[in-house]
Amino acid sequence: MSTASPTSRAPLAGVVVLDLTHVLAGPYCSMTLAELGARVIKIERPEIGDDSREFGPFIDGQSAYFATINRDKESIALDLKDEKDRAVFDRMLARADVVLENYRPGVMERFGYGWEALHQRFPKLIYGAVSGFGHSGPWAAKPSYDMVVQAMGGVMSITGEKNREPVRCGASIGDVVAGMFLSQGVLAALYDRERSGLGRKVDVAMLDGQLAIIEHAVAIVEARGSAPGPEGARHPSIAPFETFHAKDGLIVIAAGNDALFAKACAVLGLDELAQDPRFATNNARVEHVQMLKRRFETVLLEQTTHHWQQQFDRAGVPNGPILDVSQTMSLDQIEARNMVVRLEADEPARAGALEMRVAGNPIKLSDAPDPKTRRAAPALDADRATILAWLDEPD
Amino acid sequence: MSTASPTSRAPLAGVVVLDLTHVLAGPYCSMTLAELGARVIKIERPEIGDDSREFGPFIDGQSAYFATINRDKESIALDLKDEKDRAVFDRMLARADVVLENYRPGVMERFGYGWEALHQRFPKLIYGAVSGFGHSGPWAAKPSYDMVVQAMGGVMSITGEKNREPVRCGASIGDVVAGMFLSQGVLAALYDRERSGLGRKVDVAMLDGQLAIIEHAVAIVEARGSAPGPEGARHPSIAPFETFHAKDGLIVIAAGNDALFAKACAVLGLDELAQDPRFATNNARVEHVQMLKRRFETVLLEQTTHHWQQQFDRAGVPNGPILDVSQTMSLDQIEARNMVVRLEADEPARAGALEMRVAGNPIKLSDAPDPKTRRAAPALDADRATILAWLDEPD
Repeated sequence: MSTASPTSRAPLAGVVVLDLTHVLAGPYCSMTLAELGARVIKIERPEIGDDSREFGPFIDGQSAYFATINRDKESIALDLKDEKDRAVFDRMLARADVVLENYRPGVMERFGYGWEALHQRFPKLIYGAVSGFGHSGPWAAKPSYDMVVQAMGGVMSITGEKNREPVRCGASIGDVVAGMFLSQGVLAALYDRERSGLGRKVDVAMLDGQLAIIEHAVAIVEARGSAPGPEGARHPSIAPFETFHAKDGLIVIAAGNDALFAKACAVLGLDELAQDPRFATNNARVEHVQMLKRRFETVLLEQTTHHWQQQFDRAGVPNGPILDVSQTMSLDQIEARNMVVRLEADEPARAGALEMRVAGNPIKLSDAPDPKTRRAAPALDADRATILAWLDEPD
Repeated sequence: MSTASPTSRAPLAGVVVLDLTHVLAGPYCSMTLAELGARVIKIERPEIGDDSREFGPFIDGQSAYFATINRDKESIALDLKDEKDRAVFDRMLARADVVLENYRPGVMERFGYGWEALHQRFPKLIYGAVSGFGHSGPWAAKPSYDMVVQAMGGVMSITGEKNREPVRCGASIGDVVAGMFLSQGVLAALYDRERSGLGRKVDVAMLDGQLAIIEHAVAIVEARGSAPGPEGARHPSIAPFETFHAKDGLIVIAAGNDALFAKACAVLGLDELAQDPRFATNNARVEHVQMLKRRFETVLLEQTTHHWQQQFDRAGVPNGPILDVSQTMSLDQIEARNMVVRLEADEPARAGALEMRVAGNPIKLSDAPDPKTRRAAPALDADRATILAWLDEPD
């Protein structure tokens, strides 16, 4: 899949993205577009730059967080209230395919760069916006961050243990999911533009994104008339689909249909369970999930997680250990998939930039490059000269 | 944004997707493509159909889970080992833009419909595959479900409370995130095909997708040399960015920069904190986060969450309550954004299909329709007649 052939080409080769966003949702979107081959130019406030340049963790005084999300991007510092800088930005807009922003609604209009104005001047330009609550509705002006929408969007209410306080999903899915939806909207607009010749505005709200990923919880509200609570380490509607205790730790067993359940029972020497009416269908198993867990654990506790992994693997039953992030990064499979890549700073415009490992591109495309390294993230304004020279090139 | 003008058109209008996937990751991808305007034809096993037709919650004996994810799709039952059914499928392939599958690697090849064979016969066809571990590497053949990759991909290790067992993220992000990456890959391939004339294979692994959304945890591994653990209800590198106790419950306060922190302090009458070197920068606040929480809560406990929400809203500080899913669905903002829509079954081919509320489309595009209803999910094989008639139409 990932081998570069002589014809190998990234799908977004030639696409230029002007990225006015900061912190995570917007930069995550532009990171994905860069991974797909777009040229992403980060436009940052002079002197301060992206807020996340100040977010830990730090390596040698530099934000590893910023470095991770902003690899393979260029940086120029522009003050959109300054006439000279606006002239530069205008020239960039004339050459761009996509502009991304995550200001509060109305801010781009005050700069004179709102969607209506830009669409008039640059009809092919695609305008992608991500904000806490979107560009419409009574809360459009309210600011937000990841955790606010994890809380208000229902995700926290279904994450954690019963009878304890809700917890955050450890991944910043308030931001990341919104960035991914924005990316999809921009890609759909790019495709559409090939046929219509016109750009579109894409408006993604982080809150909307949270509701859109809890399809199952919404279905429970509709079926029961009341909201689901947290279920700890199990799926509320599939069984077995949870963590179990083995001799030396926890193992996840997930059997989503009757055939897999029968295989899991066979591994445990519990074939009689597959015939038991309490466990014969998924629906019945969900009703008797506490009993099922005990029956499984009375056997599982006799051997180690490693033993059971091998047994379940051999039988084709989905299972796995709970790994910490450095264990995940070290998996042979992750290595084989080129899912840990390295930032490189071996050029003058990246002098002193952080070199570190980051997650690779999860979208593996035939005949597209999938290199083992990425260009390190830029210092603020690191690419001004390159960008100005590009603007002087003939179209 | 969402008003349909006379020129209103969905960006993927005219795109035909043949969807061989089941349960969640693949169907989530095709749901998104349908929301963007594609025609999605679900190809299901005769008699059994998609496994998730048997997953709860149920309404009147029908799976509300299946109904949610498979709205706006058509269904035909085909046995890809049967010669007659293969002939039908071949005719469908000749008219399709995208085929999606989530079999284990090698299964499509055994059917004679692997990527290489299809690319030869239908060079413009885009082939999207989602699987637990991807189509390459030593674990390619291993089966998986959401919870297995949440466990092995590191997400569970950073979700939950310190010193307690890890929990699952309540949203099925193992599946959903993979479906979203697949959607992005397919959209990028559609755009690319307009220029190259050729389809591509998109290969997404659920495990890869989990590593790709924990950018921050990967950065911590690189910075500290050890993996982060769970942090309960706070972000590990930003402060304040967590839940706080007020008089009658919990409130999330998220201040991602010094200016917002100063505003939050002003609301609480704690202006001196913004000058205190222990709290003057985000980095310092993270170091003294336990003290900061106590200082905030000594004031917050005096009043209700409602009181503080109003105060923080007025000051422009990101904040919010923890809502359950039915509360989220009832928010004015969610209504204003058309984020809860209704399935309708008012046509013969949907007779008896579930009518219920589901989450709307979080990708709001200018000049695209954003209706308040969706076509209900199909019974198994409900659209056979329509699909066969379509195949008889001139190209």
